[in-house]
Amino acid sequence: MQIKQIAYIRSDFVEKFGIPRQSNLADTRAEIHFLPEYQNADALREIEAYDYLWLIWEFSESIRDTWSPTVRPPRLGGNRRVGVFATRSPFRPNPIGLSSVKLIGVEFREKEGPVLIVEGADLLDMTPIYDIKPYLPYVDSHPEAKGGFAEEKKDYKLDVNFPEMYLEQIPAEKRAALIQILGQDPRPSYQKDPVRIYGMSYAGMEIHFRVDKETLYVTEVERS
Amino acid sequence: MQIKQIAYIRSDFVEKFGIPRQSNLADTRAEIHFLPEYQNADALREIEAYDYLWLIWEFSESIRDTWSPTVRPPRLGGNRRVGVFATRSPFRPNPIGLSSVKLIGVEFREKEGPVLIVEGADLLDMTPIYDIKPYLPYVDSHPEAKGGFAEEKKDYKLDVNFPEMYLEQIPAEKRAALIQILGQDPRPSYQKDPVRIYGMSYAGMEIHFRVDKETLYVTEVERS
Repeated sequence: MQIKQIAYIRSDFVEKFGIPRQSNLADTRAEIHFLPEYQNADALREIEAYDYLWLIWEFSESIRDTWSPTVRPPRLGGNRRVGVFATRSPFRPNPIGLSSVKLIGVEFREKEGPVLIVEGADLLDMTPIYDIKPYLPYVDSHPEAKGGFAEEKKDYKLDVNFPEMYLEQIPAEKRAALIQILGQDPRPSYQKDPVRIYGMSYAGMEIHFRVDKETLYVTEVERS
Repeated sequence: MQIKQIAYIRSDFVEKFGIPRQSNLADTRAEIHFLPEYQNADALREIEAYDYLWLIWEFSESIRDTWSPTVRPPRLGGNRRVGVFATRSPFRPNPIGLSSVKLIGVEFREKEGPVLIVEGADLLDMTPIYDIKPYLPYVDSHPEAKGGFAEEKKDYKLDVNFPEMYLEQIPAEKRAALIQILGQDPRPSYQKDPVRIYGMSYAGMEIHFRVDKETLYVTEVERS
Protein backbone atom coordinates (compact mmCIF):
# COMPACT_ATOMS: atom_id res chain seq x y z
CA MET A 1 0.00 0.00 0.00
CA GLN A 2 1.24 3.46 -0.85
CA ILE A 3 0.68 5.99 1.93
CA LYS A 4 1.11 9.75 1.68
CA GLN A 5 2.84 12.00 4.14
CA ILE A 6 0.36 14.51 5.56
CA ALA A 7 2.44 16.35 8.15
CA TYR A 8 5.78 16.43 9.93
CA ILE A 9 6.94 17.15 13.42
CA ARG A 10 9.06 20.06 14.60
CA SER A 11 10.78 18.85 17.75
CA ASP A 12 13.93 19.62 19.71
CA PHE A 13 15.53 16.30 18.82
CA VAL A 14 17.86 16.57 15.85
CA GLU A 15 19.58 13.23 16.42
CA LYS A 16 18.42 9.86 17.69
CA PHE A 17 20.65 9.82 20.76
CA GLY A 18 18.69 11.26 23.67
CA ILE A 19 15.19 10.72 22.32
CA PRO A 20 13.04 9.20 25.07
CA ARG A 21 12.58 5.45 24.59
CA GLN A 22 8.82 5.87 24.28
CA SER A 23 6.30 8.66 24.05
CA ASN A 24 5.06 10.43 27.19
CA LEU A 25 8.27 9.91 29.15
CA ALA A 26 9.19 13.60 29.07
CA ASP A 27 7.08 16.73 28.67
CA THR A 28 8.86 17.85 25.53
CA ARG A 29 6.84 20.28 23.45
CA ALA A 30 6.67 19.79 19.74
CA GLU A 31 4.61 21.07 16.85
CA ILE A 32 2.86 19.23 14.06
CA HIS A 33 2.93 21.12 10.78
CA PHE A 34 0.82 20.00 7.84
CA LEU A 35 1.96 19.74 4.25
CA PRO A 36 0.29 22.41 2.08
CA GLU A 37 -2.37 20.06 0.74
CA TYR A 38 -3.52 19.24 4.29
CA GLN A 39 -3.39 22.75 5.77
CA ASN A 40 -7.09 22.85 6.44
CA ALA A 41 -8.59 24.02 9.71
CA ASP A 42 -11.77 22.05 9.03
CA ALA A 43 -9.85 18.79 9.23
CA LEU A 44 -9.17 19.57 12.92
CA ARG A 45 -12.68 20.68 13.83
CA GLU A 46 -13.52 19.51 17.40
CA ILE A 47 -10.11 17.87 17.88
CA GLU A 48 -9.67 19.86 21.09
CA ALA A 49 -12.33 17.65 22.68
CA TYR A 50 -9.51 15.12 23.17
CA ASP A 51 -6.57 15.14 25.57
CA TYR A 52 -4.36 12.81 23.57
CA LEU A 53 -3.74 12.00 19.93
CA TRP A 54 -2.22 9.05 18.14
CA LEU A 55 0.48 9.76 15.62
CA ILE A 56 1.33 7.21 12.95
CA TRP A 57 4.72 8.11 11.58
CA GLU A 58 7.77 6.84 9.76
CA PHE A 59 11.00 5.66 11.36
CA SER A 60 12.65 7.67 8.61
CA GLU A 61 16.17 7.18 9.98
CA SER A 62 15.80 3.43 10.45
CA ILE A 63 14.78 2.15 7.04
CA ARG A 64 16.28 -1.17 5.96
CA ASP A 65 15.71 -3.28 2.91
CA THR A 66 15.48 -6.55 4.77
CA TRP A 67 13.82 -7.54 8.01
CA SER A 68 15.09 -9.64 10.84
CA PRO A 69 12.66 -11.76 12.91
CA THR A 70 14.44 -10.84 16.13
CA VAL A 71 15.94 -7.68 17.60
CA ARG A 72 18.02 -6.91 20.69
CA PRO A 73 16.27 -4.17 22.67
CA PRO A 74 18.66 -1.71 24.36
CA ARG A 75 16.43 -2.01 27.41
CA LEU A 76 17.53 -5.63 27.81
CA GLY A 77 21.19 -4.77 27.69
CA GLY A 78 21.49 -5.38 23.98
CA ASN A 79 22.30 -9.07 24.26
CA ARG A 80 18.92 -10.77 24.51
CA ARG A 81 17.03 -11.43 21.29
CA VAL A 82 13.25 -11.13 21.26
CA GLY A 83 10.76 -11.29 18.41
CA VAL A 84 10.44 -8.05 16.50
CA PHE A 85 6.64 -8.05 17.00
CA ALA A 86 7.20 -8.29 20.76
CA THR A 87 9.03 -4.94 20.63
CA ARG A 88 8.50 -1.38 19.49
CA SER A 89 11.90 -1.46 17.77
CA PRO A 90 12.21 0.70 14.63
CA PHE A 91 13.72 -2.26 12.77
CA ARG A 92 10.51 -3.97 11.71
CA PRO A 93 9.09 -5.10 8.37
CA ASN A 94 7.40 -1.71 7.88
CA PRO A 95 9.11 1.27 9.53
CA ILE A 96 5.87 2.53 11.09
CA GLY A 97 5.96 4.28 14.45
CA LEU A 98 3.02 4.73 16.81
CA SER A 99 2.99 7.32 19.60
CA SER A 100 0.36 8.85 21.79
CA VAL A 101 1.00 12.52 22.50
CA LYS A 102 -0.77 15.04 24.68
CA LEU A 103 -2.67 17.69 22.76
CA ILE A 104 -1.95 21.13 24.19
CA GLY A 105 -3.78 23.15 21.57
CA VAL A 106 -4.29 24.20 17.98
CA GLU A 107 -2.78 27.40 16.61
CA PHE A 108 -3.55 28.98 13.29
CA ARG A 109 -0.60 30.67 11.60
CA GLU A 110 -0.60 32.56 8.38
CA LYS A 111 2.26 30.67 6.76
CA GLU A 112 1.93 27.20 8.25
CA GLY A 113 -1.83 26.98 8.55
CA PRO A 114 -3.16 25.06 11.53
CA VAL A 115 -0.45 23.77 13.86
CA LEU A 116 -0.96 21.19 16.60
CA ILE A 117 0.99 21.83 19.79
CA VAL A 118 1.73 18.52 21.51
CA GLU A 119 3.71 17.18 24.44
CA GLY A 120 5.51 13.90 25.01
CA ALA A 121 6.49 13.11 21.41
CA ASP A 122 9.45 10.76 20.97
CA LEU A 123 10.00 11.82 17.35
CA LEU A 124 13.07 13.19 15.66
CA ASP A 125 12.69 16.68 14.20
CA MET A 126 11.11 16.58 10.69
CA THR A 127 9.77 13.03 11.06
CA PRO A 128 7.04 12.39 8.46
CA ILE A 129 3.55 11.81 9.84
CA TYR A 130 0.95 9.73 8.01
CA ASP A 131 -2.06 9.82 10.28
CA ILE A 132 -3.43 11.60 13.33
CA LYS A 133 -6.28 10.02 15.28
CA PRO A 134 -8.00 10.94 18.53
CA TYR A 135 -7.13 8.85 21.58
CA LEU A 136 -10.32 7.14 22.78
CA PRO A 137 -9.77 6.13 26.40
CA TYR A 138 -12.73 3.74 26.47
CA VAL A 139 -11.15 1.51 23.83
CA ASP A 140 -7.44 2.47 23.85
CA SER A 141 -6.74 2.45 27.56
CA HIS A 142 -5.85 -0.83 29.28
CA PRO A 143 -4.08 0.27 32.47
CA GLU A 144 -4.17 -3.26 33.88
CA ALA A 145 -2.40 -4.83 30.89
CA LYS A 146 0.85 -6.73 31.27
CA GLY A 147 3.68 -4.71 29.79
CA GLY A 148 6.29 -7.42 29.25
CA PHE A 149 9.97 -6.67 29.54
CA ALA A 150 9.50 -3.04 28.57
CA GLU A 151 7.56 -2.38 31.75
CA GLU A 152 9.99 -0.91 34.20
CA LYS A 153 10.09 2.78 33.52
CA LYS A 154 11.20 3.43 37.10
CA ASP A 155 14.41 1.45 36.81
CA TYR A 156 15.89 4.17 34.71
CA LYS A 157 15.71 7.14 37.04
CA LEU A 158 18.99 8.93 37.63
CA ASP A 159 19.64 11.95 39.79
CA VAL A 160 20.62 14.80 37.50
CA ASN A 161 23.39 17.14 38.58
CA PHE A 162 23.02 20.13 36.25
CA PRO A 163 25.24 23.04 37.38
CA GLU A 164 23.37 26.36 37.29
CA MET A 165 25.91 27.96 34.91
CA TYR A 166 25.12 25.29 32.32
CA LEU A 167 21.39 25.20 32.97
CA GLU A 168 21.16 28.94 32.26
CA GLN A 169 22.22 28.29 28.69
CA ILE A 170 19.03 26.29 28.06
CA PRO A 171 15.85 28.25 27.25
CA ALA A 172 13.83 28.40 30.47
CA GLU A 173 10.77 26.63 29.08
CA LYS A 174 12.84 23.66 27.94
CA ARG A 175 14.74 22.96 31.15
CA ALA A 176 12.24 20.71 32.90
CA ALA A 177 11.85 18.41 29.89
CA LEU A 178 15.62 18.20 29.40
CA ILE A 179 16.13 17.17 33.02
CA GLN A 180 13.44 14.48 32.59
CA ILE A 181 15.21 13.15 29.51
CA LEU A 182 18.57 13.04 31.25
CA GLY A 183 17.04 11.42 34.33
CA GLN A 184 15.84 8.54 32.18
CA ASP A 185 19.43 7.76 31.25
CA PRO A 186 19.86 8.24 27.52
CA ARG A 187 22.91 5.94 27.39
CA PRO A 188 22.63 2.57 25.72
CA SER A 189 21.93 0.07 28.52
CA TYR A 190 25.13 -1.83 27.85
CA GLN A 191 27.44 1.14 28.31
CA LYS A 192 28.29 1.69 31.94
CA ASP A 193 31.65 3.44 31.83
CA PRO A 194 31.62 6.13 34.56
CA VAL A 195 34.33 8.30 32.98
CA ARG A 196 33.04 8.33 29.43
CA ILE A 197 31.60 11.68 28.33
CA TYR A 198 28.47 11.50 26.19
CA GLY A 199 27.14 14.26 23.97
CA MET A 200 23.43 14.74 23.32
CA SER A 201 21.82 17.34 21.07
CA TYR A 202 18.72 19.05 22.38
CA ALA A 203 17.00 22.25 21.31
CA GLY A 204 20.01 23.47 19.37
CA MET A 205 22.44 22.77 22.20
CA GLU A 206 24.96 20.00 22.77
CA ILE A 207 24.75 18.62 26.31
CA HIS A 208 27.84 16.80 27.58
CA PHE A 209 27.48 14.46 30.54
CA ARG A 210 28.83 11.45 32.32
CA VAL A 211 27.08 8.99 34.61
CA ASP A 212 28.57 7.61 37.78
CA LYS A 213 26.41 5.12 39.67
CA GLU A 214 22.95 6.70 40.06
CA THR A 215 23.89 10.28 39.16
CA LEU A 216 24.21 11.99 35.82
CA TYR A 217 26.62 14.94 35.82
CA VAL A 218 26.32 17.59 33.13
CA THR A 219 29.88 18.60 32.31
CA GLU A 220 29.41 21.14 29.53
CA VAL A 221 26.75 22.80 27.36
CA GLU A 222 27.50 24.36 24.01
CA ARG A 223 25.67 25.50 20.92
CA SER A 224 25.53 22.66 18.43
CA MET B 1 6.01 5.47 1.60
CA GLN B 2 5.35 1.98 0.34
CA ILE B 3 4.36 -0.45 3.07
CA LYS B 4 4.10 -4.22 2.75
CA GLN B 5 1.31 -6.42 3.98
CA ILE B 6 2.66 -8.86 6.57
CA ALA B 7 -0.49 -10.63 7.74
CA TYR B 8 -4.27 -10.70 7.51
CA ILE B 9 -7.09 -11.32 9.90
CA ARG B 10 -9.54 -14.20 9.89
CA SER B 11 -12.65 -12.91 11.62
CA ASP B 12 -16.36 -13.67 11.68
CA PHE B 13 -17.24 -10.38 9.98
CA VAL B 14 -17.68 -10.76 6.25
CA GLU B 15 -19.42 -7.44 5.73
CA LYS B 16 -19.05 -4.03 7.32
CA PHE B 17 -22.56 -3.92 8.78
CA GLY B 18 -22.44 -5.24 12.32
CA ILE B 19 -18.74 -4.71 12.98
CA PRO B 20 -18.33 -3.10 16.41
CA ARG B 21 -17.66 0.64 16.12
CA GLN B 22 -14.28 0.26 17.83
CA SER B 23 -12.04 -2.53 19.03
CA ASN B 24 -12.65 -4.20 22.40
CA LEU B 25 -16.40 -3.64 22.37
CA ALA B 26 -17.19 -7.33 21.95
CA ASP B 27 -15.19 -10.45 22.80
CA THR B 28 -15.09 -11.67 19.23
CA ARG B 29 -12.30 -14.17 18.59
CA ALA B 30 -10.21 -13.78 15.50
CA GLU B 31 -6.93 -15.11 14.15
CA ILE B 32 -3.97 -13.34 12.64
CA HIS B 33 -2.33 -15.32 9.86
CA PHE B 34 1.01 -14.27 8.45
CA LEU B 35 1.92 -14.13 4.78
CA PRO B 36 4.45 -16.86 3.89
CA GLU B 37 7.46 -14.54 4.07
CA TYR B 38 6.57 -13.58 7.67
CA GLN B 39 5.65 -17.05 8.97
CA ASN B 40 8.46 -17.10 11.47
CA ALA B 41 8.01 -18.16 15.08
CA ASP B 42 11.10 -16.19 16.10
CA ALA B 43 9.39 -12.93 15.18
CA LEU B 44 6.87 -13.62 17.98
CA ARG B 45 9.37 -14.68 20.62
CA GLU B 46 8.22 -13.40 24.07
CA ILE B 47 5.09 -11.76 22.65
CA GLU B 48 3.01 -13.66 25.21
CA ALA B 49 4.46 -11.37 27.89
CA TYR B 50 1.83 -8.86 26.74
CA ASP B 51 -1.93 -8.84 27.26
CA TYR B 52 -2.75 -6.57 24.31
CA LEU B 53 -1.36 -5.88 20.88
CA TRP B 54 -1.70 -3.00 18.47
CA LEU B 55 -2.69 -3.80 14.93
CA ILE B 56 -2.00 -1.34 12.15
CA TRP B 57 -4.17 -2.32 9.23
CA GLU B 58 -5.80 -1.14 6.06
CA PHE B 59 -9.37 0.07 5.68
CA SER B 60 -9.35 -2.03 2.55
CA GLU B 61 -13.07 -1.54 1.85
CA SER B 62 -12.97 2.22 2.33
CA ILE B 63 -10.30 3.41 -0.07
CA ARG B 64 -10.99 6.68 -1.86
CA ASP B 65 -8.88 8.71 -4.22
CA THR B 66 -9.62 12.03 -2.61
CA TRP B 67 -9.89 13.13 0.98
CA SER B 68 -12.47 15.30 2.68
CA PRO B 69 -11.47 17.51 5.63
CA THR B 70 -14.69 16.68 7.46
CA VAL B 71 -16.75 13.54 8.01
CA ARG B 72 -20.15 12.83 9.58
CA PRO B 73 -19.70 10.16 12.26
CA PRO B 74 -22.63 7.72 12.50
CA ARG B 75 -22.34 8.11 16.27
CA LEU B 76 -23.45 11.72 15.93
CA GLY B 77 -26.52 10.81 13.94
CA GLY B 78 -24.82 11.33 10.62
CA ASN B 79 -25.64 15.02 10.33
CA ARG B 80 -22.88 16.77 12.27
CA ARG B 81 -19.59 17.38 10.49
CA VAL B 82 -16.35 17.12 12.45
CA GLY B 83 -12.73 17.21 11.33
CA VAL B 84 -11.48 13.93 9.95
CA PHE B 85 -8.51 13.97 12.36
CA ALA B 86 -10.94 14.31 15.27
CA THR B 87 -12.47 10.96 14.30
CA ARG B 88 -11.45 7.37 13.71
CA SER B 89 -13.44 7.37 10.47
CA PRO B 90 -12.08 5.12 7.70
CA PHE B 91 -12.38 8.00 5.24
CA ARG B 92 -9.06 9.73 5.95
CA PRO B 93 -6.09 10.75 3.82
CA ASN B 94 -4.43 7.37 4.39
CA PRO B 95 -6.78 4.43 4.99
CA ILE B 96 -4.85 3.24 8.04
CA GLY B 97 -6.70 1.59 10.90
CA LEU B 98 -5.43 1.23 14.47
CA SER B 99 -6.88 -1.27 16.94
CA SER B 100 -5.80 -2.72 20.23
CA VAL B 101 -6.76 -6.36 20.60
CA LYS B 102 -6.41 -8.81 23.45
CA LEU B 103 -3.81 -11.50 22.88
CA ILE B 104 -5.20 -14.89 23.84
CA GLY B 105 -2.28 -16.97 22.62
CA VAL B 106 0.02 -18.13 19.86
CA GLU B 107 -0.58 -21.39 18.03
CA PHE B 108 1.80 -23.06 15.64
CA ARG B 109 0.16 -24.82 12.73
CA GLU B 110 1.82 -26.84 10.04
CA LYS B 111 0.27 -25.02 7.10
CA GLU B 112 -0.20 -21.50 8.43
CA GLY B 113 2.85 -21.23 10.65
CA PRO B 114 2.44 -19.19 13.82
CA VAL B 115 -1.09 -17.86 14.33
CA LEU B 116 -2.06 -15.19 16.86
CA ILE B 117 -5.40 -15.75 18.58
CA VAL B 118 -6.91 -12.41 19.56
CA GLU B 119 -10.11 -11.00 20.97
CA GLY B 120 -11.92 -7.71 20.42
CA ALA B 121 -10.86 -7.05 16.82
CA ASP B 122 -13.13 -4.74 14.82
CA LEU B 123 -11.72 -5.90 11.48
CA LEU B 124 -13.48 -7.35 8.48
CA ASP B 125 -12.40 -10.88 7.53
CA MET B 126 -9.23 -10.87 5.37
CA THR B 127 -8.24 -7.29 6.27
CA PRO B 128 -4.55 -6.70 5.48
CA ILE B 129 -2.30 -6.05 8.48
CA TYR B 130 0.90 -4.00 8.20
CA ASP B 131 2.28 -4.00 11.72
CA ILE B 132 1.84 -5.67 15.08
CA LYS B 133 3.24 -4.02 18.19
CA PRO B 134 3.01 -4.83 21.88
CA TYR B 135 0.68 -2.65 23.97
CA LEU B 136 2.80 -0.88 26.60
CA PRO B 137 0.44 0.24 29.37
CA TYR B 138 2.94 2.65 30.91
CA VAL B 139 2.98 4.79 27.76
CA ASP B 140 -0.18 3.80 25.86
CA SER B 141 -2.74 3.93 28.66
CA HIS B 142 -4.37 7.24 29.57
CA PRO B 143 -7.54 6.22 31.39
CA GLU B 144 -8.20 9.79 32.54
CA ALA B 145 -8.11 11.25 29.02
CA LYS B 146 -11.07 13.12 27.60
CA GLY B 147 -12.71 11.02 24.92
CA GLY B 148 -14.62 13.67 22.99
CA PHE B 149 -17.92 12.92 21.35
CA ALA B 150 -17.03 9.26 20.85
CA GLU B 151 -17.04 8.70 24.59
CA GLU B 152 -20.39 7.26 25.48
CA LYS B 153 -20.15 3.55 24.95
CA LYS B 154 -22.99 2.97 27.40
CA ASP B 155 -25.54 4.95 25.41
CA TYR B 156 -25.71 2.15 22.92
CA LYS B 157 -26.85 -0.71 25.12
CA LEU B 158 -29.97 -2.51 23.97
CA ASP B 159 -31.68 -5.47 25.55
CA VAL B 160 -31.34 -8.38 23.17
CA ASN B 161 -34.29 -10.71 22.73
CA PHE B 162 -32.78 -13.77 21.02
CA PRO B 163 -35.27 -16.66 20.93
CA GLU B 164 -33.66 -19.95 21.91
CA MET B 165 -34.61 -21.65 18.61
CA TYR B 166 -32.56 -19.06 16.73
CA LEU B 167 -29.69 -18.90 19.21
CA GLU B 168 -29.16 -22.65 18.85
CA GLN B 169 -28.19 -22.13 15.24
CA ILE B 170 -25.13 -20.11 16.29
CA PRO B 171 -22.01 -22.07 17.33
CA ALA B 172 -21.99 -22.10 21.14
CA GLU B 173 -18.64 -20.35 21.49
CA LYS B 174 -19.79 -17.44 19.35
CA ARG B 175 -23.09 -16.67 21.07
CA ALA B 176 -21.84 -14.34 23.81
CA ALA B 177 -19.92 -12.12 21.38
CA LEU B 178 -22.87 -11.96 18.98
CA ILE B 179 -25.19 -10.83 21.78
CA GLN B 180 -22.66 -8.13 22.73
CA ILE B 181 -22.54 -6.91 19.15
CA LEU B 182 -26.32 -6.78 18.86
CA GLY B 183 -26.61 -5.06 22.25
CA GLN B 184 -24.43 -2.22 20.96
CA ASP B 185 -27.00 -1.52 18.27
CA PRO B 186 -25.42 -2.11 14.88
CA ARG B 187 -27.94 0.17 13.12
CA PRO B 188 -26.80 3.48 11.73
CA SER B 189 -27.65 6.06 14.41
CA TYR B 190 -30.00 7.92 12.12
CA GLN B 191 -32.22 4.92 11.39
CA LYS B 192 -34.85 4.47 14.04
CA ASP B 193 -37.68 2.70 12.26
CA PRO B 194 -39.12 0.10 14.67
CA VAL B 195 -40.61 -2.14 11.97
CA ARG B 196 -37.65 -2.26 9.62
CA ILE B 197 -35.88 -5.64 9.54
CA TYR B 198 -32.10 -5.49 9.34
CA GLY B 199 -29.83 -8.30 8.23
CA MET B 200 -26.32 -8.76 9.62
CA SER B 201 -23.78 -11.41 8.63
CA TYR B 202 -21.84 -13.05 11.41
CA ALA B 203 -19.84 -16.25 11.47
CA GLY B 204 -21.43 -17.57 8.30
CA MET B 205 -24.95 -16.79 9.43
CA GLU B 206 -27.39 -14.06 8.52
CA ILE B 207 -29.05 -12.58 11.60
CA HIS B 208 -32.33 -10.73 11.02
CA PHE B 209 -33.56 -8.32 13.65
CA ARG B 210 -35.61 -5.27 14.38
CA VAL B 211 -35.29 -2.73 17.17
CA ASP B 212 -38.21 -1.26 19.06
CA LYS B 213 -37.34 1.30 21.73
CA GLU B 214 -34.60 -0.24 23.93
CA THR B 215 -34.97 -3.84 22.76
CA LEU B 216 -33.51 -5.66 19.79
CA TYR B 217 -35.59 -8.62 18.63
CA VAL B 218 -33.94 -11.35 16.56
CA THR B 219 -36.55 -12.41 14.02
CA GLU B 220 -34.72 -15.02 11.98
CA VAL B 221 -31.34 -16.73 11.57
CA GLU B 222 -30.24 -18.38 8.36
CA ARG B 223 -27.06 -19.61 6.69
CA SER B 224 -25.62 -16.85 4.56
